[in-house]
Amino acid sequence: MAEKMLAAVKTDAAPRATTMKTVPRPEAGPGEVLVKVKIASICGTDVHIYRWDEWAKARIKPPLIQGHEFAGEVVDLGENTTHIQVGDYVSAEGHVACGACYQCRTGQSHICPNVHIIGVDRDGAFAEYVAVPEENIIVNPANLPLEMATIQDPFGNSVQTVFSADAPGNNVAVFGLGPTGLMSVALLRAIATSKIFAIGHVNEYRMNLARELGADYVLKASDDLEAVVAQETEGRGVDHVLEMSGSPHAFNQGLKILRPGGGMHVLGIYADPFVVDVSSDMVTKGIQLYGIHGRRMYADWYRMAGLLTSGKLNLKPIITHRFPFEEFLEAIEVMESGNCGKVVLYME
Amino acid sequence: MAEKMLAAVKTDAAPRATTMKTVPRPEAGPGEVLVKVKIASICGTDVHIYRWDEWAKARIKPPLIQGHEFAGEVVDLGENTTHIQVGDYVSAEGHVACGACYQCRTGQSHICPNVHIIGVDRDGAFAEYVAVPEENIIVNPANLPLEMATIQDPFGNSVQTVFSADAPGNNVAVFGLGPTGLMSVALLRAIATSKIFAIGHVNEYRMNLARELGADYVLKASDDLEAVVAQETEGRGVDHVLEMSGSPHAFNQGLKILRPGGGMHVLGIYADPFVVDVSSDMVTKGIQLYGIHGRRMYADWYRMAGLLTSGKLNLKPIITHRFPFEEFLEAIEVMESGNCGKVVLYME
Amino acid sequence: MAEKMLAAVKTDAAPRATTMKTVPRPEAGPGEVLVKVKIASICGTDVHIYRWDEWAKARIKPPLIQGHEFAGEVVDLGENTTHIQVGDYVSAEGHVACGACYQCRTGQSHICPNVHIIGVDRDGAFAEYVAVPEENIIVNPANLPLEMATIQDPFGNSVQTVFSADAPGNNVAVFGLGPTGLMSVALLRAIATSKIFAIGHVNEYRMNLARELGADYVLKASDDLEAVVAQETEGRGVDHVLEMSGSPHAFNQGLKILRPGGGMHVLGIYADPFVVDVSSDMVTKGIQLYGIHGRRMYADWYRMAGLLTSGKLNLKPIITHRFPFEEFLEAIEVMESGNCGKVVLYME
Amino acid sequence: MAEKMLAAVKTDAAPRATTMKTVPRPEAGPGEVLVKVKIASICGTDVHIYRWDEWAKARIKPPLIQGHEFAGEVVDLGENTTHIQVGDYVSAEGHVACGACYQCRTGQSHICPNVHIIGVDRDGAFAEYVAVPEENIIVNPANLPLEMATIQDPFGNSVQTVFSADAPGNNVAVFGLGPTGLMSVALLRAIATSKIFAIGHVNEYRMNLARELGADYVLKASDDLEAVVAQETEGRGVDHVLEMSGSPHAFNQGLKILRPGGGMHVLGIYADPFVVDVSSDMVTKGIQLYGIHGRRMYADWYRMAGLLTSGKLNLKPIITHRFPFEEFLEAIEVMESGNCGKVVLYME
Repeated sequence: MAEKMLAAVKTDAAPRATTMKTVPRPEAGPGEVLVKVKIASICGTDVHIYRWDEWAKARIKPPLIQGHEFAGEVVDLGENTTHIQVGDYVSAEGHVACGACYQCRTGQSHICPNVHIIGVDRDGAFAEYVAVPEENIIVNPANLPLEMATIQDPFGNSVQTVFSADAPGNNVAVFGLGPTGLMSVALLRAIATSKIFAIGHVNEYRMNLARELGADYVLKASDDLEAVVAQETEGRGVDHVLEMSGSPHAFNQGLKILRPGGGMHVLGIYADPFVVDVSSDMVTKGIQLYGIHGRRMYADWYRMAGLLTSGKLNLKPIITHRFPFEEFLEAIEVMESGNCGKVVLYME
Repeated sequence: MAEKMLAAVKTDAAPRATTMKTVPRPEAGPGEVLVKVKIASICGTDVHIYRWDEWAKARIKPPLIQGHEFAGEVVDLGENTTHIQVGDYVSAEGHVACGACYQCRTGQSHICPNVHIIGVDRDGAFAEYVAVPEENIIVNPANLPLEMATIQDPFGNSVQTVFSADAPGNNVAVFGLGPTGLMSVALLRAIATSKIFAIGHVNEYRMNLARELGADYVLKASDDLEAVVAQETEGRGVDHVLEMSGSPHAFNQGLKILRPGGGMHVLGIYADPFVVDVSSDMVTKGIQLYGIHGRRMYADWYRMAGLLTSGKLNLKPIITHRFPFEEFLEAIEVMESGNCGKVVLYME
Repeated sequence: MAEKMLAAVKTDAAPRATTMKTVPRPEAGPGEVLVKVKIASICGTDVHIYRWDEWAKARIKPPLIQGHEFAGEVVDLGENTTHIQVGDYVSAEGHVACGACYQCRTGQSHICPNVHIIGVDRDGAFAEYVAVPEENIIVNPANLPLEMATIQDPFGNSVQTVFSADAPGNNVAVFGLGPTGLMSVALLRAIATSKIFAIGHVNEYRMNLARELGADYVLKASDDLEAVVAQETEGRGVDHVLEMSGSPHAFNQGLKILRPGGGMHVLGIYADPFVVDVSSDMVTKGIQLYGIHGRRMYADWYRMAGLLTSGKLNLKPIITHRFPFEEFLEAIEVMESGNCGKVVLYME
Repeated sequence: MAEKMLAAVKTDAAPRATTMKTVPRPEAGPGEVLVKVKIASICGTDVHIYRWDEWAKARIKPPLIQGHEFAGEVVDLGENTTHIQVGDYVSAEGHVACGACYQCRTGQSHICPNVHIIGVDRDGAFAEYVAVPEENIIVNPANLPLEMATIQDPFGNSVQTVFSADAPGNNVAVFGLGPTGLMSVALLRAIATSKIFAIGHVNEYRMNLARELGADYVLKASDDLEAVVAQETEGRGVDHVLEMSGSPHAFNQGLKILRPGGGMHVLGIYADPFVVDVSSDMVTKGIQLYGIHGRRMYADWYRMAGLLTSGKLNLKPIITHRFPFEEFLEAIEVMESGNCGKVVLYME
């Protein structure tokens, strides 16, 4: 194995400030495995770091190799690993949980308060090699295409969100048509959701993708959603809302179009606190709200493997751009533009 | 309205003993509505009565007009009805629950111990008109085809069974490929079940239908199911078993191929008690077993309407035979042969 | 039966404006039963109407006989009743649901959007007789004391809220020590909640009641709740918060002391929309929020009967004041003062 | 630390064949901690091994130090431990799960098919020292009495079983009054179960204990249970049955007294397969059956700590016999007699 590798390094605490450079190859520490990365994909989080927004300033300590969505092959094992083997075709859960807290010890490690995230709090996969705790390694089915393997981490967000609802035969609205929203639309389509309302903002590219992936109605946040939903559901309202936009306006619109007793499933992150009509929109309507973070470890990964190898879910259109890893900077610019689905990078 | 109507009447406590004859048209009593039947379908229960088996002998009091699967139009309202209107396009839940017991008062009227069943304990829908309690009437969506509307009662059995499991992305086995098993296969397909194992007996007609409706593997009870499932699930076992065959052998095979922690969903009715390895197959494996009866009133009906009008579920192949009502006796003979899916009767 | 009866009548659209007067006795209409009231109790809602606040102005149409918490004896049956009998010892669910909407047809009639409330939208139980739909009648166990029978409607709010959580062996905070909060404390005590934090405001009377009913910690909203809870739960936070105060500050405090993955159970009604930190307090913490309204019809009533006759729940201290019905105006003044638990009225 | 220790060693593959002897002290291997045992208690499983029954013959490989219920102090740490510290007051989950299988990776490690059990498949706690994987170590609350700390492993069986049901305010029957059944009775009492029916066999000692721990009705399997339950529940039946006896007769009786829609929670282990009336007793009644094995790792342990330190659960009477460890052979004879609750051993 080479001692050096190519990596995309966030070098400084400043916007952009990412450089393609040769750095020392990481080693697999105790309990870790070393993965040769074959494919990686770019997350919205990576764009936040690239732009160096408020969240990034508070959290990120450059230099850092970003990237937590990937697939590759195990090439080395650290001490005290137990079941993963060299040659395994793998991806990884990005949340490295502590293993010792109440959440980790009760099946809720996806909300471990001591979490470290690959590519955020430790070096990640925008590189030829990445070292990952064995615990986090997912062995992929042999017949899972690379492009599906790499998007499992964000698709897992969609999976956790969608399956916190009861969609089949019911009516569901998705707010926010970024990659996670779009994958949710495709998944809702695959599980026979009755009517899927996909609500975007201004991005025609993504609204068209939503249509292609199975949305029955593609609307804008500026439409009269209450009127449309009331008419199309015979006054019942939607049974579930998936809020993936991060817009307070969408959150409150979502509550309005939800039927009494419905479910509000929130993956969106909001820049600031905002006003909610808790009494009218949540209490007297008897709604349930689910805050969604990460992916259930690792039930959601098993379900993903089952979905992605079944031939019954069409996620292919979500991959809209492919780059060789060397063109990482072009790739992240496409992602930043928003005129794309998922953008993937090939390392070899 | 005519005072007389054509009906298929079980005239005597004997096998067959069903005659097409003209009888007085029923009237809508207090709290009832009168439905002009447009289409009806034949249930396995109807075959039990036709054959006059032990169950029928104990339960049925001829003369009786059978039939509980149908769709039609409301043509008259009895006193004290509240919301159904003349002209409504309707079907009906076949279980007339008492409304006063613990089960009925707590959302479990599908297992009301005082239930009366339409076409079993009171006159049914193998006739030009049927009187039904308003409570049991389901208003169908205008765009629901007649052939889908009439099979909702048995499809509701499939719906309750399938949604007592967690199928999407998981592996599920269905034992028993009668109409309810076949509709379950189609439904599992529609909700992205990862691998669907359909297990029949000797009836090639129905095994072919299972394949057409979406089964990934069509097997016979005499196959080495444990070996096949172990291989196709990488040793994990299926996550859920739907037992719809009524065969003790199938029940016990189902438990063997179920993974630890899996779900056993039993709609099948067994002629006699039988031996079960409770310790090894249920307790130490930590499985959950769900006895399924009828349809949840009326959550399963709303879900059915959502599924059947979505265009995302393909139940059409399940309707294999169509007869004018006058040929009822031919129709029930086809049903008895087993070489069919659902058999429907057109009243007009 | 007398043709006239004594009633407390809200005569005018104005604060107070309630008069004790003789009015015609109601009759049991179709599907209704007539109850001779033996005991009634005063709800916070009755105080809102008495004070004629904004909510009351928008909803109430005087003249009105208030009162929806009561127990008594059935003395007459209207037409078309089916199972209730003269002489039955009864109480009633106050929400008269429509019976025809999606919610009513799927076991969620407690959030029927077409609900009419006894004593709010139709004449109620602050009178010698009240007519109630048979559907809403609850037959009380013979050994249920009158003072427990009359408080079931509000206790049902506590029951629905508490059992939407998973309290036994876990730590729970209750915000708001009105009667519903106090009954929740007693119930949490009865089901072995590990640590019960009861959080009041300034009312010492009710904070003392909370202690008597089983709170392990009685705190004020102005205390440093985060510090206290962190210390007493070893940094874990409470597992569930029951928000019954209607205070935005309490709502947001509740979210802060909740552990990641915990449950927020909201019965409180807030005068206005308010600011919530949805991202930090609900999404990334992975919490579930349950809006609670009314009582599940009628599962919560069966559970209540089981609890109240078991001898394992001590609700007696909650009844702090007893008046003969003639002294209704004194009774409601006590209720308005807040220096009380439940205030009951004896009609005979 | 001494190099040698006293242990109770099953020396040979034969009935009894247990000797108190001095053996080498174990060491904490990689990922393990060494615990100085202060108290241990005897499980029914230990009696099976002592008697050398069919199950023991098939599973146990002497020489073996038995014992998986204990509490003590951590005195040494192996390599690669992460959060447990010397001096911690601990107990341990007895099931050492593999960590790599589907069950372990999805929060169901209590039914890991590759489990090894402490004191069964590896040396246990009937000794002065025991080495345990850090993963399995439970840090006890400082104020948890030793006698409560040692019985957590079996109490965890009761906890998992009881909380798979919905007991508060409902009626529950417990079949089998061994220690686990008795602890379940105490727990049901502590969470305001409405009516607790405790059903024993012939052991008066344990039937009296059931009464003391809170059973409302103590019955024998030979009583007319259907009649008693019907009368005491007004014909409804019990809402849940906890089957902890391992008797096929009890299993089938339990199904008969269960109401339609009720829950059957089975911890009992049956020597052989047996006849069940699946149709009448499980399917048409719409019941749910839960096979229960072990304790949820580690949610049930957190709940236990919350219950046992709350002062709201009275388990003290369950400890009926106390011995110094040196008298282990007398202690296990008491356990074998059945005239006892839990039997504990003090190591110091």
